[in-house]
Amino acid sequence: MSERVKEILTWYGSDNPGTLTNLARLMNHGALAGTGRLVILPVDQGFEHGPGRSFAMNPAAYDPRYHFQLAIEAGCNAYAAPLGFLEAGAREFAGQLPLILKLSNHDVLLEEKDPAQAITGSVQDAVRLGCVGIGFTIYPGSEHRLAMYSQLRALAEEAKQRGLAVVVWSYPRGSGLSKDGETAIDVTAYAAHIAAQLGAHLIKVKLPTAHLEQAAAKKVYEKEGVPTGTLAERVRHVVQSTFDGRRIVIFSGGAADTDEAVFEQVRAIRDGGGFGSIIGRNSFQRKKPDALRFLKTIMDIYSGARK
Amino acid sequence: MSERVKEILTWYGSDNPGTLTNLARLMNHGALAGTGRLVILPVDQGFEHGPGRSFAMNPAAYDPRYHFQLAIEAGCNAYAAPLGFLEAGAREFAGQLPLILKLSNHDVLLEEKDPAQAITGSVQDAVRLGCVGIGFTIYPGSEHRLAMYSQLRALAEEAKQRGLAVVVWSYPRGSGLSKDGETAIDVTAYAAHIAAQLGAHLIKVKLPTAHLEQAAAKKVYEKEGVPTGTLAERVRHVVQSTFDGRRIVIFSGGAADTDEAVFEQVRAIRDGGGFGSIIGRNSFQRKKPDALRFLKTIMDIYSGARK
Amino acid sequence: MSERVKEILTWYGSDNPGTLTNLARLMNHGALAGTGRLVILPVDQGFEHGPGRSFAMNPAAYDPRYHFQLAIEAGCNAYAAPLGFLEAGAREFAGQLPLILKLSNHDVLLEEKDPAQAITGSVQDAVRLGCVGIGFTIYPGSEHRLAMYSQLRALAEEAKQRGLAVVVWSYPRGSGLSKDGETAIDVTAYAAHIAAQLGAHLIKVKLPTAHLEQAAAKKVYEKEGVPTGTLAERVRHVVQSTFDGRRIVIFSGGAADTDEAVFEQVRAIRDGGGFGSIIGRNSFQRKKPDALRFLKTIMDIYSGARK
Amino acid sequence: MSERVKEILTWYGSDNPGTLTNLARLMNHGALAGTGRLVILPVDQGFEHGPGRSFAMNPAAYDPRYHFQLAIEAGCNAYAAPLGFLEAGAREFAGQLPLILKLSNHDVLLEEKDPAQAITGSVQDAVRLGCVGIGFTIYPGSEHRLAMYSQLRALAEEAKQRGLAVVVWSYPRGSGLSKDGETAIDVTAYAAHIAAQLGAHLIKVKLPTAHLEQAAAKKVYEKEGVPTGTLAERVRHVVQSTFDGRRIVIFSGGAADTDEAVFEQVRAIRDGGGFGSIIGRNSFQRKKPDALRFLKTIMDIYSGARK
Amino acid sequence: MSERVKEILTWYGSDNPGTLTNLARLMNHGALAGTGRLVILPVDQGFEHGPGRSFAMNPAAYDPRYHFQLAIEAGCNAYAAPLGFLEAGAREFAGQLPLILKLSNHDVLLEEKDPAQAITGSVQDAVRLGCVGIGFTIYPGSEHRLAMYSQLRALAEEAKQRGLAVVVWSYPRGSGLSKDGETAIDVTAYAAHIAAQLGAHLIKVKLPTAHLEQAAAKKVYEKEGVPTGTLAERVRHVVQSTFDGRRIVIFSGGAADTDEAVFEQVRAIRDGGGFGSIIGRNSFQRKKPDALRFLKTIMDIYSGARK
Repeated sequence: MSERVKEILTWYGSDNPGTLTNLARLMNHGALAGTGRLVILPVDQGFEHGPGRSFAMNPAAYDPRYHFQLAIEAGCNAYAAPLGFLEAGAREFAGQLPLILKLSNHDVLLEEKDPAQAITGSVQDAVRLGCVGIGFTIYPGSEHRLAMYSQLRALAEEAKQRGLAVVVWSYPRGSGLSKDGETAIDVTAYAAHIAAQLGAHLIKVKLPTAHLEQAAAKKVYEKEGVPTGTLAERVRHVVQSTFDGRRIVIFSGGAADTDEAVFEQVRAIRDGGGFGSIIGRNSFQRKKPDALRFLKTIMDIYSGARK
Repeated sequence: MSERVKEILTWYGSDNPGTLTNLARLMNHGALAGTGRLVILPVDQGFEHGPGRSFAMNPAAYDPRYHFQLAIEAGCNAYAAPLGFLEAGAREFAGQLPLILKLSNHDVLLEEKDPAQAITGSVQDAVRLGCVGIGFTIYPGSEHRLAMYSQLRALAEEAKQRGLAVVVWSYPRGSGLSKDGETAIDVTAYAAHIAAQLGAHLIKVKLPTAHLEQAAAKKVYEKEGVPTGTLAERVRHVVQSTFDGRRIVIFSGGAADTDEAVFEQVRAIRDGGGFGSIIGRNSFQRKKPDALRFLKTIMDIYSGARK
Repeated sequence: MSERVKEILTWYGSDNPGTLTNLARLMNHGALAGTGRLVILPVDQGFEHGPGRSFAMNPAAYDPRYHFQLAIEAGCNAYAAPLGFLEAGAREFAGQLPLILKLSNHDVLLEEKDPAQAITGSVQDAVRLGCVGIGFTIYPGSEHRLAMYSQLRALAEEAKQRGLAVVVWSYPRGSGLSKDGETAIDVTAYAAHIAAQLGAHLIKVKLPTAHLEQAAAKKVYEKEGVPTGTLAERVRHVVQSTFDGRRIVIFSGGAADTDEAVFEQVRAIRDGGGFGSIIGRNSFQRKKPDALRFLKTIMDIYSGARK
Repeated sequence: MSERVKEILTWYGSDNPGTLTNLARLMNHGALAGTGRLVILPVDQGFEHGPGRSFAMNPAAYDPRYHFQLAIEAGCNAYAAPLGFLEAGAREFAGQLPLILKLSNHDVLLEEKDPAQAITGSVQDAVRLGCVGIGFTIYPGSEHRLAMYSQLRALAEEAKQRGLAVVVWSYPRGSGLSKDGETAIDVTAYAAHIAAQLGAHLIKVKLPTAHLEQAAAKKVYEKEGVPTGTLAERVRHVVQSTFDGRRIVIFSGGAADTDEAVFEQVRAIRDGGGFGSIIGRNSFQRKKPDALRFLKTIMDIYSGARK
Repeated sequence: MSERVKEILTWYGSDNPGTLTNLARLMNHGALAGTGRLVILPVDQGFEHGPGRSFAMNPAAYDPRYHFQLAIEAGCNAYAAPLGFLEAGAREFAGQLPLILKLSNHDVLLEEKDPAQAITGSVQDAVRLGCVGIGFTIYPGSEHRLAMYSQLRALAEEAKQRGLAVVVWSYPRGSGLSKDGETAIDVTAYAAHIAAQLGAHLIKVKLPTAHLEQAAAKKVYEKEGVPTGTLAERVRHVVQSTFDGRRIVIFSGGAADTDEAVFEQVRAIRDGGGFGSIIGRNSFQRKKPDALRFLKTIMDIYSGARK
């Protein structure tokens, strides 16, 4: 095992060897194995946005097996999806790549200012499907956030007892925040910190903007001169906010119109000390050869094979 | 066992042999045994609409035994009903046809914009009554939908552990949707996809119209040119949206004034790759000989015995 | 055992011998033993309306033992009451008459448009008090109805596992209904059907009027010519609506100013195929000798000893 | 054991010998041992009203041990308090007097029209602290009352299984009642009856006024001429309303400006057939010697040593 | 063990030896070991206010290990933090200082008038991390307070069974109180008393002002002449209100602009009979050498080494 992976595992001193084993599997799989960087393929857009909006531009992606194959061929570290999508391929692709079962989902057939979630899978489901971990989304800023934190904690406790890793999507939304505030640097750092305090091993947030949302935070950031001018600086602040870099934090893209813009973001994540990317729509909403080229470029940036 | 049934069973690679056995029983019973097509008789209208509205036009149907007999004589693949109706015949007709216990129901003595449900049976009830599976309704679009998804998931997990199949009625309704939206093609495909992601083996939706309800979906459907002009095309899109055809999707009739119109719909389901029909009121609200003729025609269309 | 009781037991083919035994005890006790008709004494008015309003006109009835004695002397099939009243006599009268423990109650110290209930006893309480069954009230039409259905179902499942009978009071009330609607024939039939679908062995409803409450039902009743002109016809329709007479349905009085009016109602119940009466206030709110005469007349009408 | 205590125990025929033993301990302790009358010291005012308002006039009472000592020296039948106060003395005074653990409390740092409660102790807490019983408050008339009834019932079931007595404070309050209605004779009798129906062994209500709150009750009380003119008559009606005197009912003082007025009330309780008093603030809010004299007078009135 | 610690342990006569052992560990660790005084380091501000607002002024504090080291070097009695922060150092610092796991947290990404909380850890988590106790916050005055009291009680029961100590942060807030009322002397004393009644071993409140919030309390305080003029008097009243000094009460600073002002407060706590301080932001929001000097001064005041 690489020194870097060994080092990362030391950060999780309260976890049992079962969970460490699964964290190691996550970091030792695929094109970035051993680097301590990760690119994960998540596919819950069918549930979150609807199948037509998610897959019509690349109809091969309606088939749940497509995403297993894409993740394997691209050399992603893991594939994360809801119960149905994993059940539909877990036997066929058993042992071929690490899987993360998302235990919470939300749909948009009813839009709500303060999003809540359904529990759509169990820790036992993750175990029986051979997953390395569970995934869970929290919406800091929503009036339902406290219930979500409590649910996450209970599921995380069970997952850790059973040797699984805990991956948290922390997406600020709801009546506590302005639209700009959802990706503000102070809010993003706060959201990542909450996930870490709730016991997440791996945290996923959106790339932050330089906006400062909360007045009390703004005052401190300005007084202390927290550097937030460049994307790399903002990534660095998020990493710092999640236990000074002792938790794995990965990012999903902000608004990026071109592939080159995405690559620029990836460089910023790398340079800011981020651990990687979670890339969904940009992967499976294009034809597979194109997706493989696109993902290879990203992984090369992370591995240092490409600038 | 027919090759087609064997093929369908391969889609459920994460289920235990007990559940596969019950799925096979469902597909290997009745006039369509072995074809991979299904016609199921559901009778929960007494609960959902009241006994008078449901049975006064064919008073023999007040007797719970009537529906067992009708399903057996017609060669349906299964009979689905709430607890009371199944309890009233399960011993007498034990082993004569596959049964599905509906675990959720709703009545109309109070009309609500956002429907919720009562839990009206348990997985253990299904086991003690000799059922092959459980049934559950979700109402995507209702403000109670997330609670229903969570309940379904928990019941489905228990059912699968105990070797039962999971049948989900996915009926979009509630304040998230316009009246037309309830049967819109984008919404119907979305509702079927959610059921599949929640772990359903068999999904039942209403026949969709060409209406596109959600603006974000409409944009994609139009841009990508998703074919939705004919009923068969819309059925095909729903089938595609439920794991590219790797989950069993069946349909109930939309507004059909004449038998011939129903048969036209059935042809569209067949031609669009749908797996069959669930036919309630059109079966038990006419005299039995007429119902048997009617159901035979439908089954003949599915089996190919009739055009 | 009489042929009639044996026949009735065949309707409950999904119940275990323990429950059948208790159903038989209910039907084989008292003046109507073996006839398949029942007169049950219920006394929860102290809880539901207050002790003064219930017992001041016959102060002997403040004593919980009075009601056991009244039911025994009158030859009622069973005595139904809440926890406290049964606890206060169950040892003294052990084995002398079948008891039904009511597990739900409601008081009127706060009046609500949509009634809910407290759970006031457990299945285990019913077992330890030697009861033959549990009782539970549902209020179809109330916004709390779905929670009540779910509670009933769970308690009924436990009761059946432990060999008890399940008696359901189905009282339409709440914001879904007009005042007249609470006893409308369509609503009463619907309420009885719901109780049967939820697994009740014995259902208690109020005597229905000829009013038709729900527009969709009214259309069908008028089109199909469902006979609802006389009370006996309406009783017959309710009986038909509860599994075509294959569940025991009994009735409580509507507005009856004189004893003779009550007897007329009893004749209508008998002639319409109803299974009996549940007679509370008309029994214990008069002096005991008068009550015994009154109940004897009713039982004679049911047994055929009197016209 | 005195004949009176033996007689009272016969009223609880459905309880196990463990609970009877604890009821006997309650009646056989202190100055009124064996008389069937009780004076209980309750001290939850620190939680209910705040420590300053409760103890500043007698600062010795801030110490939890004070109340154990006061109850022992005065010869009270029992001492009732919340978890913290009992934990702070249960070892030191183990076996020296019967203890009742109050399992519910409410504070006034937020005033609400419809009071609810926190669960502040468990049946297991009562067992480990050596208590003879549990205490619980219900607020008939509050919109939260049904939840409280259900909680009480569940805790009472557990307490009875474990051989403890169940003491219920029944305090009508909330949006269902006028201010006068909270102590109206019809409402007080109703509140006591509800507690008895929920399985209480010992019930505590406030002394009722002659006010009649509920129109339907008023009509009956006036028609039947229920005597409510004197306090003794009202006590008698409350006793009658709790199973015709077959449950133990005790009273707390109404507005009493002088000690003599309290003694007058005690005489009325005695003459009306009440079982005793629960005396909190009048005991611990005066210096101990004064309190002992005051309590002795009350006990002498109950025992007959004083007129 | 010092006589003072032995004496304090006698106050907890209802706790098992396991809990006493952990209380002793708390009192026998660090610079104040054996004195019966405590200084505890709490670090949940990252969760409660956000990481930037909490740590930007001393970036070393982003690292969870920093706080363990600070507490050890300063000789604090214990370190209290949420799950994530403790998990990130519990192995590395195992056995080096007593830990308290905070089981409840709240964030400010949504501000609410009536604060509620998430459950962010379990008693089992505290056990597996080697903690001496659990921490929990209640907000008396919030409309959610009763639910929090009930949760605390249940967690405290479990913690005591497993030999842990229970530490309660009692912070009056919410619609029941004015802004000034949150730190009023009557409210603070009440809040501390509630925590003690709920079974807390160690209670943490804010330093109270002389404001009297509740009219009924004000009347009594003024009539009885409760001394509240100086801070030491107010501390004394709070200590008196928590079982006359038989529960450990510690304080956090009010508004203190200078270090000297904090030291003045500490002298008042000491002189008023308070048991110590909980010092968060004033410790970790300055450089470590400065923090160590600052904390040493405080401990010296408590130990008597400094006036």
